[in-house]
Amino acid sequence: MTGRFCSMDKEFKNLVFCIVGLGLIGGSYAKALRLLGVKKIIAVDSNKDILSQAKAQGVIDTPCALPDENLKEADVIIFAVYPASIFEFVKKNVGNFKASVLLTDAAGIKGDMIERIAPLLGKDMDFVSGHPMAGKEGSGFSQSSEQIFNGANYIVVPGPNNNRENVEWLKSLAMALGCKRTVEVTKEQHDKIIAYTSNLPHLLAVALVNSKSMNDDTRFFVAGSFRDATRVADINAELWTDLFLYNRANVLAEIEMFKEELALWSEALEKNDAEKLKSMMRSAAMKRKALYNA
Amino acid sequence: MTGRFCSMDKEFKNLVFCIVGLGLIGGSYAKALRLLGVKKIIAVDSNKDILSQAKAQGVIDTPCALPDENLKEADVIIFAVYPASIFEFVKKNVGNFKASVLLTDAAGIKGDMIERIAPLLGKDMDFVSGHPMAGKEGSGFSQSSEQIFNGANYIVVPGPNNNRENVEWLKSLAMALGCKRTVEVTKEQHDKIIAYTSNLPHLLAVALVNSKSMNDDTRFFVAGSFRDATRVADINAELWTDLFLYNRANVLAEIEMFKEELALWSEALEKNDAEKLKSMMRSAAMKRKALYNA
Repeated sequence: MTGRFCSMDKEFKNLVFCIVGLGLIGGSYAKALRLLGVKKIIAVDSNKDILSQAKAQGVIDTPCALPDENLKEADVIIFAVYPASIFEFVKKNVGNFKASVLLTDAAGIKGDMIERIAPLLGKDMDFVSGHPMAGKEGSGFSQSSEQIFNGANYIVVPGPNNNRENVEWLKSLAMALGCKRTVEVTKEQHDKIIAYTSNLPHLLAVALVNSKSMNDDTRFFVAGSFRDATRVADINAELWTDLFLYNRANVLAEIEMFKEELALWSEALEKNDAEKLKSMMRSAAMKRKALYNA
Repeated sequence: MTGRFCSMDKEFKNLVFCIVGLGLIGGSYAKALRLLGVKKIIAVDSNKDILSQAKAQGVIDTPCALPDENLKEADVIIFAVYPASIFEFVKKNVGNFKASVLLTDAAGIKGDMIERIAPLLGKDMDFVSGHPMAGKEGSGFSQSSEQIFNGANYIVVPGPNNNRENVEWLKSLAMALGCKRTVEVTKEQHDKIIAYTSNLPHLLAVALVNSKSMNDDTRFFVAGSFRDATRVADINAELWTDLFLYNRANVLAEIEMFKEELALWSEALEKNDAEKLKSMMRSAAMKRKALYNA
């Protein structure tokens, strides 16, 4: 592998991008790349209406309802589809990729995707995995926005065989899209941490809304805490089923650790232990402040 | 009891209000009442700096570091202190209240407060309990804002002995402060529902931040879901210890119901049950949408 994406090619305006999957995240990449002024944006999506809409809005240049010869033009392909689909797409279409293409993805969970895709690639191709720590409730192109990158962290998950210059190039792209910081981690670290910071909060939001206590009167008694705690319960069930199952061992471990915290609460309440309750809450308040003032 | 707060007295500009406790909620009442143009705002708080600050900002007219003769002027007293303190305040100071005073509170949990206070009152006094379904992270007067009432529901919890006109008057005040709706419930219903819609989300936020998974790297991997799920973990530990203990039986029941939902998740993940995961998430997404579109 050679470092095709070295300094002179950081000129994003000379590069053709292809986005596979024009949903919330794919649409957001397209809109941010458009603002960045890249040479051309190709989009592959099975939904022709979305493609027409994105084309009419000037967000993309070349709509492809099926992957075709247009793929050959792309210097960079960004996968914004469900993790399970990325492998299938590469397997079927690698013959239509540019020999020197750089591939990346936006999948929130990595699993064994990186190792599975690498052997499919030509010798000058490189798949550098990553994703923005960003997202929004809802789903679909209509919800997409270049704003999701603003101030976000961008996680890069290099494999042992990635070309270092390509890794650096992906980081420079992330910053150009509006992210405030890039962070490199191994895929094992990545999936473990994400189980806590993303999978678990989504699961808790769903569980809270699904509690047997929910009824027709609930809406009169909800304020900020309930609204925020349940925002992501309006979830894309198909995508997240994939993500949860890819990361099930880590998610199960997080549920167990969370139940330990609930057990501390139950115990303190049963014993009327004001000091224990105060100490748990003081600790949480400090940690929450530190997290967002760091 | 006579209905002193009948239609003509809804003219808020003719009434003197006293706010006991000039923290986040008390300060917010004061600011909203000021905008409403009431006759005078007296504030009782042990923190003299806060009183001076509120007076200098024109938010209050009469600062009282200790409850004194000024209380006699108040047509309405609003308690914005911890539940345990309301009873003590009334017991000590009822001799300084106007004979026809209307008392109300903003306590998020009612417990047996209403029955305990009623016998302390003079025959023309009335304590109508309620509170806005509103709040903010953090605490203290500096965090207060008249905006917390905007679009909020205001819960009124009448007791069997309340004068009906006073109940209606409190509802009209809530609407005047900016609330979008008032809802009446019994105190038993109130505390049970609040255990779910307010106590539980706060407890979950604290538990999430306190999980053993939290470490120095967490901050690089947090996005919207974690931020929103933990917003209220920056909690006022003293106040909430009171609220949780006042409502412990209901909160314990909510924790158990929440654990049932977690058990469904663990089971589905262990069994690799994609259909079950999808169905739980679809159900949650629909419920969340219904809640905020209703």
